[in-house]
Amino acid sequence: MSDHHFPLRVYIEDTDAGGIVYYVNYLKFMERGRTELMRSLGFGKAAILEEGRMFVVHGADVRYLRPAQLDDELTVVTSISKLARSYLIFRQQVVRSGEPLCQGEIKVACVEQASMKPVAIPGTVHSVLKQQFSLRK
Amino acid sequence: MSDHHFPLRVYIEDTDAGGIVYYVNYLKFMERGRTELMRSLGFGKAAILEEGRMFVVHGADVRYLRPAQLDDELTVVTSISKLARSYLIFRQQVVRSGEPLCQGEIKVACVEQASMKPVAIPGTVHSVLKQQFSLRK
Amino acid sequence: MSDHHFPLRVYIEDTDAGGIVYYVNYLKFMERGRTELMRSLGFGKAAILEEGRMFVVHGADVRYLRPAQLDDELTVVTSISKLARSYLIFRQQVVRSGEPLCQGEIKVACVEQASMKPVAIPGTVHSVLKQQFSLRK
Amino acid sequence: MSDHHFPLRVYIEDTDAGGIVYYVNYLKFMERGRTELMRSLGFGKAAILEEGRMFVVHGADVRYLRPAQLDDELTVVTSISKLARSYLIFRQQVVRSGEPLCQGEIKVACVEQASMKPVAIPGTVHSVLKQQFSLRK
Repeated sequence: MSDHHFPLRVYIEDTDAGGIVYYVNYLKFMERGRTELMRSLGFGKAAILEEGRMFVVHGADVRYLRPAQLDDELTVVTSISKLARSYLIFRQQVVRSGEPLCQGEIKVACVEQASMKPVAIPGTVHSVLKQQFSLRK
Repeated sequence: MSDHHFPLRVYIEDTDAGGIVYYVNYLKFMERGRTELMRSLGFGKAAILEEGRMFVVHGADVRYLRPAQLDDELTVVTSISKLARSYLIFRQQVVRSGEPLCQGEIKVACVEQASMKPVAIPGTVHSVLKQQFSLRK
Repeated sequence: MSDHHFPLRVYIEDTDAGGIVYYVNYLKFMERGRTELMRSLGFGKAAILEEGRMFVVHGADVRYLRPAQLDDELTVVTSISKLARSYLIFRQQVVRSGEPLCQGEIKVACVEQASMKPVAIPGTVHSVLKQQFSLRK
Repeated sequence: MSDHHFPLRVYIEDTDAGGIVYYVNYLKFMERGRTELMRSLGFGKAAILEEGRMFVVHGADVRYLRPAQLDDELTVVTSISKLARSYLIFRQQVVRSGEPLCQGEIKVACVEQASMKPVAIPGTVHSVLKQQFSLRK
């Protein structure tokens, strides 16, 4: 799988009094990228929720390199760096004109909605991800 | 009932690139004020949700007078201006040192969670609100 | 001018524990629509800020009709219902498959950034808006 | 220095359609905690900005352990784990009734506002932080 690219625009809602994108919001941008990667593979969020499971973020390790500004056009670049039975790790970058502004590794686990306990990623989802993931190397 | 007062602080998360509080966030401040008014009457959000009903905002009419800044200490002043069978209207102000920055009328309806259709406000909630409301005049 | 249409997707960041779009966030959606309308006329936010003026929201009157859900594809429909010397009023709807979910009138004023006092909308911006606005009737 | 404790309440604005606190928002909670720690030492955000410098987050490494719910009362526990010339690292936890829900290490750098380049933390700020930091051991 080649990296997934998702374009977005910076709006005033994304900025803070420093005149730049509020750093917390890059995590929202990254989630949009992951969501669209999953959607491009045929999995809307709704699909997962129907089985009483959901994906939740268990960890985020983010580095900020340069600030984005109001009106900037950004791209979220997403790949899967690890796929396990009950979780996966996304490697993501938010870039502007090819220049990385922010990069992160996000660990997303599949949990049972009622108990919030880790469970196996649904079979159909896992096999599609595995196929994509192995194609990558 | 005298007006309900709820204090809050402006954090960087609340601001935008204009260097002031992002106007949309006053609606969050107002909701915190309404939530705390209800809590002061003995009604946490959870209590309502348990009966399969929930309060949802059906309308908001907001005027912005002066901007708030980072670090400002604000107060949300809330009263109930109308109480009907299935909805109520809150009159709210966000003030700084007694000076109004933002004022609004928020119409909040009680709906059945499954259908999102209006239903009567639960009896215990309604009677407490009515008592408070009538005391006001 | 025909109405301006701006499409957007609902992400998890837009929702709340009620399982629907958090009502405050429709105001963000509407601002994206206004921003893109202005951009389509040649005016990025940056252009306004350069003259030491900025647009700020002075009032918002919003009605909520039906809730949007996670993953929904929405459209923000925007027109200008009034154009004055120092402010304009936008009429906006957020729709899903042609069905209105939320509608609002947003009053946006042009202010001097330093003082936050109302000033005339920059001439070039005003004349383009006026031309668009008069074409409408 | 003993750890700094900052209490907060979970409002509907903090939650998502999963019925829990949206994980991105813990970063907002943590920033409130850091801001109040700095304020308790005599440094409002405004003080830093006046010298043409500002603190920006350069990195965040966050682990999510258990979800918080609507209405929860949380505490942000903050300490400084490293103090360098131009940056510091905060160690933070968001806890509920003593139980950690989320923990993170946040690297905050001092930059020149115009260039966004790292600069030395202002002397008065650095010496107070150093004093607090050394007291800790």
